[in-house]
Amino acid sequence: MRAMVWESRFEGRAPVSILENFNSSIAADMFLFGAELRASSAYARGLATAGLLTRKELAAILGGLAAIEERGRNPEAFRPFEDVHSAVELLLIEEIGEAGKKLHTGRSRNEQVATDERLYLKDEIPALIGAAASVQRALVGLAEQNIEIVMPGYSHLQRGQPILFAHYVLSFFWAVERGKERLRDALRRVDVLPLGSGALAGSTVPLDREELRKLLGFAEISENSYDVVGDRGFVLETLFALALLLLDLSRLAEDFVLFATAEFGFLEFDPSLATSSSLMPQKKNPDVFELVRAAPGRLFGRLAQLFLAVKGLPSSYNKDLQEDKKPLREGVEDARLVLAAAAASLERVRPNRERMRAAVAPNLFAADLADVLVDRGVPFRDAHAAAASAVRIAEEKGGDIASLTADEWAAIHPLFGKIPEDIFDPLASIRRKKTSGSTHPDKVRLQIERAKVLLT
Amino acid sequence: MRAMVWESRFEGRAPVSILENFNSSIAADMFLFGAELRASSAYARGLATAGLLTRKELAAILGGLAAIEERGRNPEAFRPFEDVHSAVELLLIEEIGEAGKKLHTGRSRNEQVATDERLYLKDEIPALIGAAASVQRALVGLAEQNIEIVMPGYSHLQRGQPILFAHYVLSFFWAVERGKERLRDALRRVDVLPLGSGALAGSTVPLDREELRKLLGFAEISENSYDVVGDRGFVLETLFALALLLLDLSRLAEDFVLFATAEFGFLEFDPSLATSSSLMPQKKNPDVFELVRAAPGRLFGRLAQLFLAVKGLPSSYNKDLQEDKKPLREGVEDARLVLAAAAASLERVRPNRERMRAAVAPNLFAADLADVLVDRGVPFRDAHAAAASAVRIAEEKGGDIASLTADEWAAIHPLFGKIPEDIFDPLASIRRKKTSGSTHPDKVRLQIERAKVLLT
Amino acid sequence: MRAMVWESRFEGRAPVSILENFNSSIAADMFLFGAELRASSAYARGLATAGLLTRKELAAILGGLAAIEERGRNPEAFRPFEDVHSAVELLLIEEIGEAGKKLHTGRSRNEQVATDERLYLKDEIPALIGAAASVQRALVGLAEQNIEIVMPGYSHLQRGQPILFAHYVLSFFWAVERGKERLRDALRRVDVLPLGSGALAGSTVPLDREELRKLLGFAEISENSYDVVGDRGFVLETLFALALLLLDLSRLAEDFVLFATAEFGFLEFDPSLATSSSLMPQKKNPDVFELVRAAPGRLFGRLAQLFLAVKGLPSSYNKDLQEDKKPLREGVEDARLVLAAAAASLERVRPNRERMRAAVAPNLFAADLADVLVDRGVPFRDAHAAAASAVRIAEEKGGDIASLTADEWAAIHPLFGKIPEDIFDPLASIRRKKTSGSTHPDKVRLQIERAKVLLT
Amino acid sequence: MRAMVWESRFEGRAPVSILENFNSSIAADMFLFGAELRASSAYARGLATAGLLTRKELAAILGGLAAIEERGRNPEAFRPFEDVHSAVELLLIEEIGEAGKKLHTGRSRNEQVATDERLYLKDEIPALIGAAASVQRALVGLAEQNIEIVMPGYSHLQRGQPILFAHYVLSFFWAVERGKERLRDALRRVDVLPLGSGALAGSTVPLDREELRKLLGFAEISENSYDVVGDRGFVLETLFALALLLLDLSRLAEDFVLFATAEFGFLEFDPSLATSSSLMPQKKNPDVFELVRAAPGRLFGRLAQLFLAVKGLPSSYNKDLQEDKKPLREGVEDARLVLAAAAASLERVRPNRERMRAAVAPNLFAADLADVLVDRGVPFRDAHAAAASAVRIAEEKGGDIASLTADEWAAIHPLFGKIPEDIFDPLASIRRKKTSGSTHPDKVRLQIERAKVLLT
Repeated sequence: MRAMVWESRFEGRAPVSILENFNSSIAADMFLFGAELRASSAYARGLATAGLLTRKELAAILGGLAAIEERGRNPEAFRPFEDVHSAVELLLIEEIGEAGKKLHTGRSRNEQVATDERLYLKDEIPALIGAAASVQRALVGLAEQNIEIVMPGYSHLQRGQPILFAHYVLSFFWAVERGKERLRDALRRVDVLPLGSGALAGSTVPLDREELRKLLGFAEISENSYDVVGDRGFVLETLFALALLLLDLSRLAEDFVLFATAEFGFLEFDPSLATSSSLMPQKKNPDVFELVRAAPGRLFGRLAQLFLAVKGLPSSYNKDLQEDKKPLREGVEDARLVLAAAAASLERVRPNRERMRAAVAPNLFAADLADVLVDRGVPFRDAHAAAASAVRIAEEKGGDIASLTADEWAAIHPLFGKIPEDIFDPLASIRRKKTSGSTHPDKVRLQIERAKVLLT
Repeated sequence: MRAMVWESRFEGRAPVSILENFNSSIAADMFLFGAELRASSAYARGLATAGLLTRKELAAILGGLAAIEERGRNPEAFRPFEDVHSAVELLLIEEIGEAGKKLHTGRSRNEQVATDERLYLKDEIPALIGAAASVQRALVGLAEQNIEIVMPGYSHLQRGQPILFAHYVLSFFWAVERGKERLRDALRRVDVLPLGSGALAGSTVPLDREELRKLLGFAEISENSYDVVGDRGFVLETLFALALLLLDLSRLAEDFVLFATAEFGFLEFDPSLATSSSLMPQKKNPDVFELVRAAPGRLFGRLAQLFLAVKGLPSSYNKDLQEDKKPLREGVEDARLVLAAAAASLERVRPNRERMRAAVAPNLFAADLADVLVDRGVPFRDAHAAAASAVRIAEEKGGDIASLTADEWAAIHPLFGKIPEDIFDPLASIRRKKTSGSTHPDKVRLQIERAKVLLT
Repeated sequence: MRAMVWESRFEGRAPVSILENFNSSIAADMFLFGAELRASSAYARGLATAGLLTRKELAAILGGLAAIEERGRNPEAFRPFEDVHSAVELLLIEEIGEAGKKLHTGRSRNEQVATDERLYLKDEIPALIGAAASVQRALVGLAEQNIEIVMPGYSHLQRGQPILFAHYVLSFFWAVERGKERLRDALRRVDVLPLGSGALAGSTVPLDREELRKLLGFAEISENSYDVVGDRGFVLETLFALALLLLDLSRLAEDFVLFATAEFGFLEFDPSLATSSSLMPQKKNPDVFELVRAAPGRLFGRLAQLFLAVKGLPSSYNKDLQEDKKPLREGVEDARLVLAAAAASLERVRPNRERMRAAVAPNLFAADLADVLVDRGVPFRDAHAAAASAVRIAEEKGGDIASLTADEWAAIHPLFGKIPEDIFDPLASIRRKKTSGSTHPDKVRLQIERAKVLLT
Repeated sequence: MRAMVWESRFEGRAPVSILENFNSSIAADMFLFGAELRASSAYARGLATAGLLTRKELAAILGGLAAIEERGRNPEAFRPFEDVHSAVELLLIEEIGEAGKKLHTGRSRNEQVATDERLYLKDEIPALIGAAASVQRALVGLAEQNIEIVMPGYSHLQRGQPILFAHYVLSFFWAVERGKERLRDALRRVDVLPLGSGALAGSTVPLDREELRKLLGFAEISENSYDVVGDRGFVLETLFALALLLLDLSRLAEDFVLFATAEFGFLEFDPSLATSSSLMPQKKNPDVFELVRAAPGRLFGRLAQLFLAVKGLPSSYNKDLQEDKKPLREGVEDARLVLAAAAASLERVRPNRERMRAAVAPNLFAADLADVLVDRGVPFRDAHAAAASAVRIAEEKGGDIASLTADEWAAIHPLFGKIPEDIFDPLASIRRKKTSGSTHPDKVRLQIERAKVLLT
């Protein structure tokens, strides 16, 4: 029989094992063990300040908690307990006797869970931001080392206009930067101390919550005990921020899977990113990027699970909230793994400059040709129509617009007269982009500088 | 270094461990071990029939597979492998040498995964249907043992009309019955053999797929090799069917949590269904039903994960599909656990007949009073209005409609004249319901009979 | 002030308009108008059979309902009503007077909603199955007209083995076929009559529900009144079946968007499928297929919405269930639109046989070369390793395996000796596939035959 | 035939109407009409600054845009256009001729869509924050007017400890406050100017983006043109922030639906919040709160839809992103409606102080009795056990702990000796809570003060 902290009440009646297993959360909440010990130490100090523990009792409890930490190395030892909170309390009593029975004075599991989860995320969110920064560093490295490579910019997966490969790569830098900001925003709402809220009404112990806040390093103190014991918005928000970060990486992954096809041929992967086929020996499957592409589902699925669990619950604590443990821990661990794999992968990618350059076909300069007419005074909409005619006529001839003769150009629009010499030069086209944030090499170098500032 | 079946290709280049771990699915797919062995045995027989294996080689392979089954008891032994499929192949080669290298002839992992997952579900879906039937049995038991208890039927959580508690309980029987039907429907699409499809184009081995079908007990053979290696509709469908089954149980759970409040007091739970509070000694928390209420999120979250992973994938096999392993296994296991807990819980619930009867307040008979007028020739809409007046007048007096005097009734509507004596008798009201499927005791007994037939 | 059927109760107190609008569902449920009229006609007949209406009253009601149908052509006329059910009842009373007040005898809106939604889906699901069949017909047409085109079969978006384009196209036929089956399965659970269930307890009117069933063409009669008034499983199931159908089409759409790139060049689209760019005149954006790719989100989003609304509700009817109207109607309409667009698009696609053939590069025959060794007695795993060596050696030389000399082949494996002449012939490779369901032309023709049978 | 800006290219080939309708977004994007006009005016000024428009042309364009604004009052006039962007451009040309053809110089629809959506949200998010503040004001009003009412605090829906009703009500204030913060955070990422990014590469027009930023009132300028044309993170984030805000309100709604039952009887609703039944005249259904309870599904469903649409897309603009229009507009409008309905409802709720007081049963003071022992030196865990014994013994006698005699108390624990007189007084128990954020009246008044500061 599982040891329970309230066993006096139901004594003599054995719980049914299937239900016991169903209720138990010890397998799911052991990841809060470290946080539980820290929160318990702080709480013991708080009780001492409030006069509920003698100096000696406090020393015994702090020593006992340290001893339990050791035992935590063997997770098997925790199996018989209902959850990590009762495990720590009961082991403490086992370890130090009477004084251990005082630790829970005026404290409830509801506030312990909330405190532990927040402590956990206060550690993990900065680590996740760091992992995202590693992805950014890899992106900046890839951009910087290949600053002069040109490629087609795509929209609708159709070739649009020439851009710098570095510009393309940096586009993800900013997406990840927003992801980091969202995590920082979530952290602000995580960084609030619940301890001192009791089960739901507040505590009868005259705890100095400001002392608890300082001991545990929280930025703020919760304002309403009834609210904080049932709030899981901070978990949902963190899962969403991670889901959105991975969603942006799924676009990079999709691109990279495409760019690694024989048809595009823009990227080559280190073998560590790819596997071969069990049946087709010639294949190099871009496994890592395929898994990164699928990864937002992992986070969104967990978000959906917890959102559903919370929907329509009565307020304050309900057991349904126990369902947040697995999504929280696995969501954080999965995100960390995906970010690490993405960063490691980006370091193992080699752009194929020839294939990229070759894809910048003459028709990509149709907009540049429209600009020629605009410069010569033709209203844009008419210039666009003329350039479109050029494409159509060239296609009908079975070629592209570079193959049109001077006469054909003149027939399309008299002002086409002489086409500028560098019109089909990718770099010239790229340099014609003048706005901030554009693919112009100077602007791209500026992006890299700003990116480096953000990474320091 | 992880052993890989295609190591020849990338020899000498060590995979990076973080990427290797990210790619590896052995932790997630060991649950297919049994299926993999069965499928491999059948495939070996198929190869023998096709003349690709001698009788002796076949015997060696079958013996080798049996030996590996033994080793499967120690999952640690499988850690170094990439996935369960290469594990079995490589261990087989280790076990029996050359003949083992022939097992994979004309076979691909793509079809192995699809075959194993289908074999797994061919076992699990009937087990899940059985678990759902256990819930139904508990419902029928609860209904039958308490056939004469009356309670208010609710809508909008407002008391509506008197019903039999048994009628209420049986309402869930039919919801679960639909859940079983959905699982049976999903099973029809699961029950299709992929083996013989090769990597995507079919196999060069002249396999008799009909033989494979019989050996593995599938109902049908897949029609298109390109389709079947990338199809995960059968997993999604199974997860959805389970999600919907648990969604119906979440309504039961919500009811039961409410019915166990001090305010309703309709149900009492065996202590095994409840826990007390770590701080408030008087509490009996209906933990099991709260967890059942949250459970549809577990399945829907996994459905969402896999749906996202599949969305927008190119056809045929992509590594993204590996993401189906964890949702599949955990979805099936969680559903089984929840169904078992629900069945066990229903056996430990005791209705409080007095509290239920007391909740059948006189105002619940307002519709019966409208019926009195209808019987006396008043159009229903007018009769309804008169009954509503009665409620309002009684409320203004601070009472309910049972407290109205004959004069007051007559003033409300002349035809109210004499109110039938048994109008406020719950059982009389219940007996006035005449339609099939209604709460009339005869109809409820009929439901129980039909339910029992469906359970045999 | 909105006219309400229960106005007597709350008379004199004006509802607040914002709340009234929030509560009102008339904008969302007018799509049930036709169903409501049919159900009301049947119900009137049922009341007459039960002796609650005279022959004359019945005639008046049936006439009145027909008159209202006319008025339904002007939806503005329905704005002031709370929902379609009260609209029909109140307009009927307006139209025919006293007899109209009898229509609602023993009937509740709870069962009306459930009945109307089921009637609606009984029409719509077969229409959706028909729309799916149109997609299939277009697929069969595309396959049949291009039966001899070869292309690479892909997995992981890497070229794998040569297949017939027709085999590729037909792979979606079977996916859509499963989608139709799921809709048929859902229809079985839709096809159940709720009418006669009253508000929740059954009806006091001695209705012959078998008569109602026949009049409305339902296959079955609901078994429990409390269950059926709150059940929305049939809506969820239909939305899911549609979501999964569109998910399969999203794979086709992803393929087609890729195949339409300059890099693949496998498909050309009729201009009606594409738009150009507002800025880049040369572009042909595959808009329709991009929208089809996004479409599963429309259905899954609505599924998620309704799943959330239902989760954790108490049983029987709750107002939350009104939230099913918009997802149901829009889900059905969107699915129909997407299926129609997909079918129309497939008729406007032209495969580029040269580009497809050109993509069948020599390395795609590596598995065929492994098969050569297998045929010559080499165990598959060793044969696979030898073929992989060939690819690697060719790559190191900067070529593909077609460029290896006889000496090089012999060095890789002595048994490679003489490579069969037709080894790099796509059609020969395709013809070597022997299993049922494979890309072998005979098997593909068989698929087409079976497909046609299923479409008749 | 729909008028299209690129018609020159595909001239003479009629688009198929079904595909045209499928592609068209005019029905979905007219809500951006105002933003499109503002953005176009600013862009015209930018072109003028860059020397691409004369002063006269600029005046003509600004005048033309004003004229079009008038025409926008009749949405029918916009039906024939593909989207709001081409509508404005083509109408402008119709309105002012040649100069109108210059407005699109160097501009693409990709950046227009992104700019318009951000302008729209820059208006809407503050309005949504305002609507949330109205909910808060209603909560503070409800708390302040009923400051002295006591009720049971619940967890697991079991009565836990006495609290102030005001404390309960204020718990939602803080949840909504977090919701407002999340919206403010989302707004920071919305508040970034895309204009000047061209189709994807930046613009060839030497636009001063700082001028555009100031004209349109954005806080920042986007850093990478390729990133910003395809980014929809800001829409997803806004939808999620709204979903989470409504999720918190769904808990309030669930509570209020429960509190309005006959069984709880804690709240009475103004008739405007409730409807009666079409069949059961006595019912008062809490419709508004039921709909608020269901509302998070509306937002989460739209979030899921768009998340799915974006997942796995290639980077930069794809037509799939058009799917954000409907979720964005409807999500914003629905959230506004729900917040308004919630605020209006909270003003129409009346607490029933007697029913709440009566629910504070003696057993709720069990924790207070444990505290008595703690004060007398008993370790908490033992004190908790003693209080639990008291509850059990009282229950076995068929009563509650208030019915225990002095002898019985002494038998349970010798230190129970004399029970303090006020132990069963709710207000005394409430006053014993000492921590900040607790239900103590002084702390609750402090909450109200802080709340008011936040609302000014």
